[in-house]
Amino acid sequence: MKENDIKHSAADLSGKTKEDVFNFEKEVKGPDFDGCFTIEMLIKGYENMGIQGSCIYSAIKEIREMRKNNARIFLGFTSNMISCGIREIIMYLAKNKHVDVMCTTAGGIEEDIIKCMAPTYLASGFVQNDGLLRECGWNRIGNMVINNENYFLFEDFMRSFLDELVLGSNKYDEYNKKFNYINLSSEHSKLKNEENGNKIILTPSKLIYFLGKKINNQSSVLYWAYKNGIIVYSHAIVDGSFGDMVSFYNHREKLVIDISEDIKCLNWEPFGNEETKRKNGAIILGGGLIKHMILNANLFNNGLDYCVLINNGVEYEASDAGAALSEGMSWGKVKNGKGIKVYGEASIIFPLVAYGGFKMSWN
Amino acid sequence: MKENDIKHSAADLSGKTKEDVFNFEKEVKGPDFDGCFTIEMLIKGYENMGIQGSCIYSAIKEIREMRKNNARIFLGFTSNMISCGIREIIMYLAKNKHVDVMCTTAGGIEEDIIKCMAPTYLASGFVQNDGLLRECGWNRIGNMVINNENYFLFEDFMRSFLDELVLGSNKYDEYNKKFNYINLSSEHSKLKNEENGNKIILTPSKLIYFLGKKINNQSSVLYWAYKNGIIVYSHAIVDGSFGDMVSFYNHREKLVIDISEDIKCLNWEPFGNEETKRKNGAIILGGGLIKHMILNANLFNNGLDYCVLINNGVEYEASDAGAALSEGMSWGKVKNGKGIKVYGEASIIFPLVAYGGFKMSWN
Amino acid sequence: MKENDIKHSAADLSGKTKEDVFNFEKEVKGPDFDGCFTIEMLIKGYENMGIQGSCIYSAIKEIREMRKNNARIFLGFTSNMISCGIREIIMYLAKNKHVDVMCTTAGGIEEDIIKCMAPTYLASGFVQNDGLLRECGWNRIGNMVINNENYFLFEDFMRSFLDELVLGSNKYDEYNKKFNYINLSSEHSKLKNEENGNKIILTPSKLIYFLGKKINNQSSVLYWAYKNGIIVYSHAIVDGSFGDMVSFYNHREKLVIDISEDIKCLNWEPFGNEETKRKNGAIILGGGLIKHMILNANLFNNGLDYCVLINNGVEYEASDAGAALSEGMSWGKVKNGKGIKVYGEASIIFPLVAYGGFKMSWN
Amino acid sequence: MKENDIKHSAADLSGKTKEDVFNFEKEVKGPDFDGCFTIEMLIKGYENMGIQGSCIYSAIKEIREMRKNNARIFLGFTSNMISCGIREIIMYLAKNKHVDVMCTTAGGIEEDIIKCMAPTYLASGFVQNDGLLRECGWNRIGNMVINNENYFLFEDFMRSFLDELVLGSNKYDEYNKKFNYINLSSEHSKLKNEENGNKIILTPSKLIYFLGKKINNQSSVLYWAYKNGIIVYSHAIVDGSFGDMVSFYNHREKLVIDISEDIKCLNWEPFGNEETKRKNGAIILGGGLIKHMILNANLFNNGLDYCVLINNGVEYEASDAGAALSEGMSWGKVKNGKGIKVYGEASIIFPLVAYGGFKMSWN
Repeated sequence: MKENDIKHSAADLSGKTKEDVFNFEKEVKGPDFDGCFTIEMLIKGYENMGIQGSCIYSAIKEIREMRKNNARIFLGFTSNMISCGIREIIMYLAKNKHVDVMCTTAGGIEEDIIKCMAPTYLASGFVQNDGLLRECGWNRIGNMVINNENYFLFEDFMRSFLDELVLGSNKYDEYNKKFNYINLSSEHSKLKNEENGNKIILTPSKLIYFLGKKINNQSSVLYWAYKNGIIVYSHAIVDGSFGDMVSFYNHREKLVIDISEDIKCLNWEPFGNEETKRKNGAIILGGGLIKHMILNANLFNNGLDYCVLINNGVEYEASDAGAALSEGMSWGKVKNGKGIKVYGEASIIFPLVAYGGFKMSWN
Repeated sequence: MKENDIKHSAADLSGKTKEDVFNFEKEVKGPDFDGCFTIEMLIKGYENMGIQGSCIYSAIKEIREMRKNNARIFLGFTSNMISCGIREIIMYLAKNKHVDVMCTTAGGIEEDIIKCMAPTYLASGFVQNDGLLRECGWNRIGNMVINNENYFLFEDFMRSFLDELVLGSNKYDEYNKKFNYINLSSEHSKLKNEENGNKIILTPSKLIYFLGKKINNQSSVLYWAYKNGIIVYSHAIVDGSFGDMVSFYNHREKLVIDISEDIKCLNWEPFGNEETKRKNGAIILGGGLIKHMILNANLFNNGLDYCVLINNGVEYEASDAGAALSEGMSWGKVKNGKGIKVYGEASIIFPLVAYGGFKMSWN
Repeated sequence: MKENDIKHSAADLSGKTKEDVFNFEKEVKGPDFDGCFTIEMLIKGYENMGIQGSCIYSAIKEIREMRKNNARIFLGFTSNMISCGIREIIMYLAKNKHVDVMCTTAGGIEEDIIKCMAPTYLASGFVQNDGLLRECGWNRIGNMVINNENYFLFEDFMRSFLDELVLGSNKYDEYNKKFNYINLSSEHSKLKNEENGNKIILTPSKLIYFLGKKINNQSSVLYWAYKNGIIVYSHAIVDGSFGDMVSFYNHREKLVIDISEDIKCLNWEPFGNEETKRKNGAIILGGGLIKHMILNANLFNNGLDYCVLINNGVEYEASDAGAALSEGMSWGKVKNGKGIKVYGEASIIFPLVAYGGFKMSWN
Repeated sequence: MKENDIKHSAADLSGKTKEDVFNFEKEVKGPDFDGCFTIEMLIKGYENMGIQGSCIYSAIKEIREMRKNNARIFLGFTSNMISCGIREIIMYLAKNKHVDVMCTTAGGIEEDIIKCMAPTYLASGFVQNDGLLRECGWNRIGNMVINNENYFLFEDFMRSFLDELVLGSNKYDEYNKKFNYINLSSEHSKLKNEENGNKIILTPSKLIYFLGKKINNQSSVLYWAYKNGIIVYSHAIVDGSFGDMVSFYNHREKLVIDISEDIKCLNWEPFGNEETKRKNGAIILGGGLIKHMILNANLFNNGLDYCVLINNGVEYEASDAGAALSEGMSWGKVKNGKGIKVYGEASIIFPLVAYGGFKMSWN
């Protein structure tokens, strides 16, 4: 069910009958609702569904291939995935070490932390009286709302977090040991060392590591990433509430957030530091920055071996967000003919794909 | 979870604290993959998911309301729903008399018949060498393909079907008895009567009724519609292979396909001919003609009481296909604040919604 | 700038250097706003713009090719094109006989007539208090509104129109003379003839012809279509206000609206009745029924030679509305590699494309 | 033509007739192609067009308001805007100091530089043999292609650029003088000062400033931004070729790219350092990071006074990219009822909007 894998030209037909070429075998067929119907039947029922239903099944198959071949799995997700209940599924993946590297946006970081302190609520729909919401202290994300109060709690947390980092005596040894293959940067990561005077230089990935440690909450994605040595990249971590807190922090001038080291590390990830070379796979929910980060990094090790994209982006805008996997091939970001794009919104699709790919038993 | 049901103005706040106004209660939360996970947990897990996940759940709830209140259910679907495996689910609904009226396009009619004779196949994706497909006799519908051979089989079927209608002595009494509330048209529906000379006047819905009878195949949606007295409307039934067969039919000049009577009947449907008045609900997969037919008909009986839309259309084009339910309210097509739109592609979404709405037990 | 026209395989490279294969020549470059800037510079500036800008230019080039080669031009448009100001451009095209055949939906017919009697107004945006609009008698189409009053005027018009047709002694000779190549149907089109008893059998295209004649208003698309012998097809003409008026018409049982003859005629259009064979081109604004009607009809004469699609549909839903031109190739609806799709909304795009294709001087 | 500005409740009607409430005045009407037709007529013709055509006009009006009121204008654009010919229009705006602050992604930076050295080419469409493109050294962006050679040129440029910064004795005084209102950071910006040992700490905005200086090419957006003191923010500047060059740079460990200072500065921008307070406006082409950066920054000064969004994003995904302006209101990012979203692709739309808003004379 791979895009582009039947692009025969007339030349390819030599010595073959045309019947050979298009030897379609799978009949389109929907699930049978008669009798008992289980989640296994639902998932398997997508195989021959056609349209995006079949893409769901192909995405699951792709993930199962990643896992069977012990591929390194990059998981990318935009912040709305953490705002909504996909957070619990990503947490499950992190807790069970099902993924190896994560890329997300600023919102993906801060909302995971905030949810440990106070809930996000469902609104009645996507059209609201937003002026009144504002007046009442509610901030809207689609059909979800977050109270200002949540951000005040985050502010307290962040102040204490930054104080610990900037004024405290945090040790980076633990971090560096965990991620020791990035030994190029070991030098770089010492806190408050002589050379850097009174400035503390941290990368987004290190900040996220310490956030996960400090939050110490089993509902948190970042907590499990910290626990399980899953590095989380977020180049634009300052683009949101986290960055605003940094802006207003008393000792801000002492804090340097360095993305130069993080890009080095991210570009190195597809090579790994294991003795045996692993294949690389990606699962990407949404588009924009987090999609490009993962695909671009994989360019340096000959492209992704496996890729699952879930988003509604279209290629006709020539944005990377909407680019088909085929475009990625021209850049060497994905290997020939590999990968599946499911066209749709991930809060519907990822529960199905994650269940089928990571949890369901397939014997 | 209805769109637009919280549009409070400042005036609405008199005598209330603002806390009363936005008394959000449901915390956004995803499903828990730890332990055993069933289809019931998946479906229920969408309730607090947020984004479109929550809309899935709301759509299911809306359908359950329709059924609990014994509403008349209009089911609309575009032809790709029959091309793909959603056909089997629609067949299940027809077989179990879960819906009362159907609206579809020409393709929705003919592909149901054709699938009784020969299969539609899955292609490897949405990008194919279409010139070569043409050369090899394969016609593509997204990631599905149909062989020319299938259309030849349909041609034979249609020739015999048309001969029976035009040259034979088919009796309409049965049809008219079934749909007897449309007694206005009883006069109209006599075949080959004196007044009409040697022309046979048939409506699309009558043609479809006879197609369902003739195909006599339990895998067919139209067969079960025929069996169970579910009338199927398709104003533009000639827009496709069916119409092409009519075009080339030897005795075409004897066959009149009348949409004047069908619009009368369709506009009458929401009133029904039952003694007790029923509420009206709609489930619409896709947009365009089939969506407008159902909503427009319901305008005359004060608008739909329930409505579930599943499509990717957006309102910014001012097309009816993409129009939000709120726009329908201004026309009186839907009642105040009623209805759910799930934004997404139905081959993924309808298995979930149909299972939760029509099959799952909810105690 | 045609989709799919560079699908070289390795085999195609024999005897060529790779440099030959991708001999890209046009540098991406935007317009120069320094100095005087004219509409010609704007239009020409799209050529090297990239993304959809270049598609605008390609669409214009495609239309200019149609015209240079005296192709028969099919124009398809959904009803929102008549609700919005694109109506005036379509009217210009009909008045100047720039197109040969039109396909539209019910709304495209009735709103053209209604606008001759009372205006459609601009609303302040796409989000409105639709309940209050309803209460105040305003019906919304995206960011436009139509008062109930307009429909009352249309009702009066229709009653008188239907009376003339059904009770009067309208003669069809004129119609039949105009469209004399469809002589197969000449027999069929006689009004109130002996054979048909007291029933009047009319096709949508004939009804539209008489609407154009009766409205007798130079702002009307249908008036100019009538004047200039441009046949307008609309299989589902009853799907809207027109159909509702028919439903409620006192003598409805005497009126038969036959789509059997119209599909015959439409499928015959690409052959024409001229002595010299003409090429076929299509310009299609929007998707759904009107797109399928035109492409399906052209299947019988080996596919369109030229095609311009303007819509936001995507192929990933496997709908005909969103199908790329390449999919049409597999069906034989469009010739190899021909045609341009501009991805976007036509109220922005068609003024540019129509000006560049039909009006601008290109010396 | 503002979204949401007519949300009357029943309460608002007291003492008014309903006719007062919806006193629609503008008749929907398209442009008149008879006679001479100029670019002014085209632009003005969009006013009463309806659908997105009217949104074009409203966007132009919004920009004219920004300019009339001397608002500070934030311009955001994704990298594909620089890949395509919109670059020349953005260059025109920078050259004429029509905008005050810019936000873009990594690609928006590097492709502006690369285009000074070698061209990007138009491909024949969006579907290509991407495997062969790869083999031949062409990288595809939608319907545009860039040769590997271009990146080699950029690599040389970057090596020399980084050497100058890291090993040379570049002075920051000039930069700091230009942007002197950010005096909080004056301390921070000294190059190679004692405190920082042998590490050089630079922000993305400073790097971009020096890129613009070094490229010294009048076709470059960044050159004119440098020349005219327009600060350009790009938090994730390492996400692309620029970052890859940094990764592989010999002395990478000496280069720190700090986003902590840049977020401080960006959040400060809406206040300005002028004596008289200015209003704030934004024009945003595309979504994702660059949209959020601008809206989030404006939250601290009570929200944008003016806003024009041009993109195809939809709010139903709960992404910030697709969020309607109304959602932004709940966060305080935009002021009550302000702003226009044009739904569409900017390579078509921005030439019209930029011409009408910045260049056309309106007397």
